[in-house]
Amino acid sequence: MPKIILTGDRPTGKLHLGHYVGSLKRRVELQNSGEFDKIFIMIADAQALTDNADNPEKVRQNIIEVALDYLSVGLDPTKSNIFIQSQIPQLTELTFYYMNLVTVARLQRNPTVKSEIQMRNFEASIPVGFFTYPISQASDITAFKATTVPVGEDQEPMIEQAREIVRKFNSVYGETLVEPDILLPDNKACLRLPGTDGKAKMSKSLGNCIYLSDSPADVKKKVMSMYTDPTHIKIEDPGKLEGNCVFTYLDAFCQPEDFAEFLPDYKNLDELKAHYQRGGLGDVKVKKFLNNVLQKQLEPIRARRHEYEKNIPEVYKILQRGTKVAYDAAEETLNEVKRSMKINYFDDEELIRVQSEKYSS
Amino acid sequence: MPKIILTGDRPTGKLHLGHYVGSLKRRVELQNSGEFDKIFIMIADAQALTDNADNPEKVRQNIIEVALDYLSVGLDPTKSNIFIQSQIPQLTELTFYYMNLVTVARLQRNPTVKSEIQMRNFEASIPVGFFTYPISQASDITAFKATTVPVGEDQEPMIEQAREIVRKFNSVYGETLVEPDILLPDNKACLRLPGTDGKAKMSKSLGNCIYLSDSPADVKKKVMSMYTDPTHIKIEDPGKLEGNCVFTYLDAFCQPEDFAEFLPDYKNLDELKAHYQRGGLGDVKVKKFLNNVLQKQLEPIRARRHEYEKNIPEVYKILQRGTKVAYDAAEETLNEVKRSMKINYFDDEELIRVQSEKYSS
Repeated sequence: MPKIILTGDRPTGKLHLGHYVGSLKRRVELQNSGEFDKIFIMIADAQALTDNADNPEKVRQNIIEVALDYLSVGLDPTKSNIFIQSQIPQLTELTFYYMNLVTVARLQRNPTVKSEIQMRNFEASIPVGFFTYPISQASDITAFKATTVPVGEDQEPMIEQAREIVRKFNSVYGETLVEPDILLPDNKACLRLPGTDGKAKMSKSLGNCIYLSDSPADVKKKVMSMYTDPTHIKIEDPGKLEGNCVFTYLDAFCQPEDFAEFLPDYKNLDELKAHYQRGGLGDVKVKKFLNNVLQKQLEPIRARRHEYEKNIPEVYKILQRGTKVAYDAAEETLNEVKRSMKINYFDDEELIRVQSEKYSS
Repeated sequence: MPKIILTGDRPTGKLHLGHYVGSLKRRVELQNSGEFDKIFIMIADAQALTDNADNPEKVRQNIIEVALDYLSVGLDPTKSNIFIQSQIPQLTELTFYYMNLVTVARLQRNPTVKSEIQMRNFEASIPVGFFTYPISQASDITAFKATTVPVGEDQEPMIEQAREIVRKFNSVYGETLVEPDILLPDNKACLRLPGTDGKAKMSKSLGNCIYLSDSPADVKKKVMSMYTDPTHIKIEDPGKLEGNCVFTYLDAFCQPEDFAEFLPDYKNLDELKAHYQRGGLGDVKVKKFLNNVLQKQLEPIRARRHEYEKNIPEVYKILQRGTKVAYDAAEETLNEVKRSMKINYFDDEELIRVQSEKYSS
């Protein structure tokens, strides 16, 4: 069975370091590992509309931003099909039929949906499209016969829902769909990067994100004002590492060779941490180091982005080509689904023959 | 604005006299009235699957039965587009986007859905597809820009839901969709024909239906065993009309000229009723009359059915042609919907131009 990846992002804003560390970096590694036969990367505009129905312009404007971010981190359109969800109508058709295989009670029990509903203060007014999005995700995954979905632990209930739908479909209509596996991040520390203000999550609305497309000056400004240890007032005070964003970011980004290049007084991150903890190391020095580390990693990303920004029509062509490939793959699956459900009446010569005989006898 | 009808039936069984009196007869009159610019008649297989997901064969086998019933009652494929719902994928795409405009709480309040859930004993295990079918119906209606939906009073909440979706869509994305109106039956007596056993509704599972395709012998047998007035034991006993199926059926079917032809002792139905009420008129005589009345009306229907039954492939061709017309109409609406939602990215030269300029400045 071919190994196929399906993953993606909702185009509701530019992508930031949290996305990079949580998924994009890994995605590029998986792409370049040569282990996968096909890779589908979805710009999930239709899913973004489920809770942004009254602001389609936001979704629309951010498609190109996400595409630029993808290309700039090294997703290679010759290896990964980047496509736009709403341009694959087969996904809505699959969703429609999968909805018959899931009960309302089952959706209500989905912990991811529960917590997202809470997060968005929806409660009494959840849009139906948002409520049912685990079913829509199952369509996204199964349409491409994805075997592998690289996502965070918090998405596990969604993959389980997809697996349930696959099992139910195959048991009712015969073996057709492929059960996906979750591929969890290999580095627990990288699971989730906090915001620059120390809050658990980077979020556009909190203004605590460093974007992949931020200018060098913006990155520096954000790093220099990062949340550290509020009890570390004088340089000689001992400093704490827990909850200290600068060190969390260093954990995520710093490479051994960065010390020789930017901070030769220390051999490695452990030495730097030890000094900070015992006192005598100021925040500014560590922040400057982090800034250098980040700028070094962001520089090639930024450079690639600028190249693509010069040719937006070409980026749309890349999306159009990826979308064509995704469309054809989804169409093939949908045809199989319809054959299994036997709702391909007009192609079904046997049906017409048997019914003709029934009435001629 | 063109006057457009959308209506249809779920293919879960052959159609019976209840369908004929409740909708089919009217539908043929509307078709032949010349008042409508377009008529779309949908065989709602996808909707039937929402609560028959594990029995697709039942739905599949009944499509041809419903089509034969349609043609035999006088629906004329040159005037009415008969099409199969599942073959119009645009309907699922519209459903997908409309789901963002309706809340879960709103669906839960829908009285038609509430009572149908109760009727089917679903409660804890409602399939999501069934729960959301008012949204799917709104897609069916709006896809064809239907102005007129001829249905019974019990369907009023469904039409109201469709109207709400239209208003919401138009207010968020700009004037695009057409608000449908319900067209109620003009004859209250014809609203709902009871079963032959006197139960409120004809239902396949209760075995109390007279089908349009029943043989003359079957019809006679069912009429002769009809529920009348259980206190009307001897011929001379006075008889009751209320709840007496034979008279309810006569109300629905009998024409003034039928008396001259089949029962010349009486001038009209009022005379017959009066005699029955005062006593001295036996059930058998009335039943024989009803049988004659029904056979006369069913005869041309049956004859047309036999003609079409001889050429099942031609019936599929009729469905295929109607489906093509419906497909094109739905595609046109969907394109307008996508333009209004501005999710037609690849056709949107303005979007690409503006974004190119943003990055070149």
